[in-house]
This record gives sequence, structure tokens and C-alpha cells, in this order.
Amino acid sequence: MKTVAVGIDIGGTNTAIGIVNPEGLVLIKDTIPTPLHGKIDLFIDDIVHSVHTLIQSVNALNPEMEVLGMGIGAPNANYYHGTIEQAPNLSFKGTVPMVTLLQAKFPEMRAIAITNDANAAAIGEMIYGGAKGMKNFVVYTLGTGVGSGIVVNGDLVYGHDGFAGECGHITIIPEGRLCGCGGKGHLEAYCSAPGMKRTAVELVAKYNATDSALAEKSFKELDSKDIFEAAEQGDPIAKEVFELTGKWLGQGLADTAHHLSPEAIFLFGGPTAAGEYIFKPTIESMEAFLLPNFKNKIKVLPSLLKAGDAAIVGASALVYKEIEK
Amino acid sequence: MKTVAVGIDIGGTNTAIGIVNPEGLVLIKDTIPTPLHGKIDLFIDDIVHSVHTLIQSVNALNPEMEVLGMGIGAPNANYYHGTIEQAPNLSFKGTVPMVTLLQAKFPEMRAIAITNDANAAAIGEMIYGGAKGMKNFVVYTLGTGVGSGIVVNGDLVYGHDGFAGECGHITIIPEGRLCGCGGKGHLEAYCSAPGMKRTAVELVAKYNATDSALAEKSFKELDSKDIFEAAEQGDPIAKEVFELTGKWLGQGLADTAHHLSPEAIFLFGGPTAAGEYIFKPTIESMEAFLLPNFKNKIKVLPSLLKAGDAAIVGASALVYKEIEK
Repeated sequence: MKTVAVGIDIGGTNTAIGIVNPEGLVLIKDTIPTPLHGKIDLFIDDIVHSVHTLIQSVNALNPEMEVLGMGIGAPNANYYHGTIEQAPNLSFKGTVPMVTLLQAKFPEMRAIAITNDANAAAIGEMIYGGAKGMKNFVVYTLGTGVGSGIVVNGDLVYGHDGFAGECGHITIIPEGRLCGCGGKGHLEAYCSAPGMKRTAVELVAKYNATDSALAEKSFKELDSKDIFEAAEQGDPIAKEVFELTGKWLGQGLADTAHHLSPEAIFLFGGPTAAGEYIFKPTIESMEAFLLPNFKNKIKVLPSLLKAGDAAIVGASALVYKEIEK
Repeated sequence: MKTVAVGIDIGGTNTAIGIVNPEGLVLIKDTIPTPLHGKIDLFIDDIVHSVHTLIQSVNALNPEMEVLGMGIGAPNANYYHGTIEQAPNLSFKGTVPMVTLLQAKFPEMRAIAITNDANAAAIGEMIYGGAKGMKNFVVYTLGTGVGSGIVVNGDLVYGHDGFAGECGHITIIPEGRLCGCGGKGHLEAYCSAPGMKRTAVELVAKYNATDSALAEKSFKELDSKDIFEAAEQGDPIAKEVFELTGKWLGQGLADTAHHLSPEAIFLFGGPTAAGEYIFKPTIESMEAFLLPNFKNKIKVLPSLLKAGDAAIVGASALVYKEIEK
């Protein structure tokens, strides 16, 4: 009998749901709106309807398929409690017992678990991606924010209360740029996609670079893809953005390495599409910051999870991790 | 039958050896010189002789005593390989297979293991000290350097190659003070005992404070105890040293907290004898750096291991941790 797992990625606007095979391939998927009405029971009904429809479709092709369980990636998810807690970008207030609510609807499933997006990415990397067989590694997710998932001795690090892995909020420059969290000088304020945009606009102003491609769009319009495209056209400002982003990110990765001595650090998310533009300065910077006995040992690698499906795939990997326990 | 464990603390000058009971009390101890001749076999013979003598003394009081094993704390120790590797402050060159050498001499012992001092302090805290029952905590050791031992899910974090826990070398101020490792702006350059002395002398110069007690000793003579005593006398420079040290240490603890979300962070070592002078600004700074959902949760506590015996006791705790596996 073939097995599959359900992966659910709850975002601020949409919720993506997919059926994933043991190789990490999404067999079929669906997208439903994440409601703004704040009524969790109605949202659960929507999820149940979508999952049943997807399972029916998969069963039509292969009636022998067993659905092992369901993994959910969501902001402010607490793995220990199976809850979403005070998520600022979701309409559900307070603490939402997602796992309990879904267990009531799917009593036949062997495992239902929830964690945040970065932890899901780390488990996805371990079960299906480049971290297969690794016992100690870290995934940094670069996007609107910067998140991280940490694996030690083969297990995800949740910490005492389920919120470990907030590497986006380590301090890179004391009293530096304002971060979305209210702090100053955090990694996220420099190395997220919006952070790169802030660097670009600062440099345009610093050099009065009216001839740069990056001077042609408003701050609101500019995004990290524009910076990558400008760098590919040889724009010196865009190239400096990547150099600086890599310098800061490398400092953060070195701090992480000094804590954990991982085998590898994976980078995941939009800005990593720039390839060597971001990897080369990041690795050079990390190596410069590392203690002698840490140098030239720690791999910095691109995530092997496919960008479009990674959130669903990562969430579904939770199921395999739970069942293995 | 009562059980005991041998704890060995190998330092640059002396090696302390003790017999420790399950409550973490040193029943008897001995100190031998750590040789400068570089001949490991002779050093092993010295250790064997000392351990046999100590065990005989303990047995004379209680012939029913079982020696469970031997734990060793040493610089540049690799737990995975049971070795000391390229320790700059020891005369033994290259890689020394300590565990193998000692197993040959003590085949009757159930566990012989080695780790570095900070990891030994963390295990000591977990087995005998303030971290009993905690599954996720960190110990920072403040002394000539700054080390750390990290416990996640009840196990010490060694990382991929056995060298995790180098929190003394996270960057606090980019391009800041030169660190002993050759890096710049590391936590150790600010929050070790010599780091505090550097701060004191910088402040004396900054304020041209000829009337400060800290202006009366040479840079070479001054130590962290002088700073504590001056602070107790109300010396404003000495007080500012503690404020700044706490600010920097708090930044480092917050970085650690964002990685690991620990239940507690223990501070161990000479400078912690200053009590509230160091704890108050450290906690205030850490809280200011923490994300909202980390605030007012993470305890910052003094180590409960007795200063004089802590290294022996911590090393001996390795035995209980090994046997529990």
C-alpha cells in the first residue's frame, strides 16, 4: 500500500493544501482563502472539505493509498501545544487549538502536527531535501522576514516553549536599522527581501546614483527581484547590495555556527534565487567571522525544496517525523 | 552499594582529580601538575597513580563503594572522538586519545568520557545543580575566556564535529575589540574577566579618572575582583564597567535565546561573584533585546556549582550522563 501525507500551509492571505508522496512530490493541491472573519470553525470546515476532495481525487487514481497524517505550517505555531498563538497576520484571535480541532475531523490519521514555516522547511529539507542523513543542520528562510529551523541530534529544536529558531532577530549591528519586531539592527532588517530593498535605496541615496536601474522605481515598487536583475546587468549598486547582504548574513551564520557547530546551513527563499550573487559574499563573510577550528567545514547550501511547493512539502514532512518517533 | 564517579579537570598548569558522590560532593581530591614535557604516557601514569590513591582512601572509609566511571574536562576536548585536539595551552601536540588511553588503565569502569570545561559545567548543572529537571538550558562560563554549554531536549549539544557551544565568539560589536582568537568584537573580548579589565582601563582613560581606585593599579595587575571591590566602594567607573559588561552580555544572551528558547541561562565563573552588579544589567539588557514573545520568560541564574570544585564536579557528572544513555 502506498502512503501519502497532507501538507497545509496557512498564510495571511491564502491557505495551500496538498497531498505529498514519500519522495516529497505534490500529487495534487488546492488553495483556499485564509478567512478574514476570524471564525475558526468555518475555516476548519473549509480545510476539511478541501482535504476530502483532494483525497478523493488521489484515491480515484490509486484506491490503495493510505493517508498517514497531516502536517500544518503556520505563523506563530506552537508545536508543543498544537496551537496557533496570537498570530498578528491572521484573523483568529488568541490561542487556536488547530491540532485538536483537526484530530476531531480526521480521527483515522496517525499523526497531525503543526509548526511554523521555518521549522517546516527544516523538516522538509531533512525528510525530502538536501539534509537527508544529516543530524545537525540549520535552515535560514529569507523572504518577507528571516526565519530559521534548527536540527540538533536529528531532532528539531523547539526550545522550552516551542519558539526556538528566531535567528532573524539576532543583533547584527547594535542600534542599527529598525526591525519589524520593534528591535534594532536585527538580521531580518538587513537580509530579508525588504531589508535588501532598504539597502538598495540607501546606497542609491549615498552615491546619488540617478543612473542606476534601482533609481527608477519607487521604494514601494522595488523588490529583491529588481535588485537581482540589475546585478545581472552589471549595476554596481545592485552588486553592492548583494555584497553587503552577504556580509551581514555571514555574520549571522557565524553566530549560529558558533552556537551549534552544524554540518550545513541551508538558505531558502526568494533572495536565494540570485545564486552566487548572494552565496559567495555570504560564505566569504561567514568564514571570516568563524573561529579557526570552525573554518572550511560548514557547508552553506541552497535548499533543495522546490520553491513553489516547499511550504506544503515541508508541512507534510512533519507527518513522517512524527510517525518515526 | 554506594556509587561514586571520578572527575578530572585538566588545566594549563594543574590537573585536579576528585572522587564525587551522586549528590555532587567532592569526597576527596588531589592536584598534580599538568606536565610541560609533552609526554602523554607519563601524564597518564601520574593520573592513574593519583586516581588509585584516591580510590584507596575512599575505600578505606567505605569498602562497599563502586567507582562508576571517570569524566574529564579539558581544553579543546572532542567528546565524539574522546580526544584532546591541538590544545594551544597544553604541551601534548596533535590529537591525544585520552579516553582510549584511560580505558586501557581502568577497564573495570563503566564509562569514561571527555568534554570541554563549559560542557562539563553544563552537565554538572544538570546532574547536581540548578538545572535539575530542565531539558533546555545554557550555561555561560565567564573567566579568562567565555565558554558555553548548551542543553537541548535533555542532551548536550556537541554539533556535527563536537565543538558546539562557542558562544564566547559571537560578534557583539562588528569591527570591535580584538579577541584572543584573532577575531574582532567577540563577546569574550568584552565579558571575560580580562574583557572587564579592558573596559575599566578604557573608561579610566576616557574620563581621565585619576581619582578612581581603578587608576591605581597597572593594566597587568588589575583584575575583575578589583573592579567588584571598587564598585562596592561606590566607584562610578567600576559601576559603569558592570553596566557595560551587562549590556554586552545581555545582547549575547538574547542571541542565544533567539536561537534556542531555553528555560534558563546560568552564569558561572569569577565575575558572577559580583552578584547583582553583573546580573541586573545583564538581565535588563537581555530583556530589551528579546522579541516580544520571549520577554519575561527566560531565567538568568547563578550557577549552583561550588566555585572551587565545579570543574571536578562537572567532569564527574559526565559519568552519570553516559550511564543514563
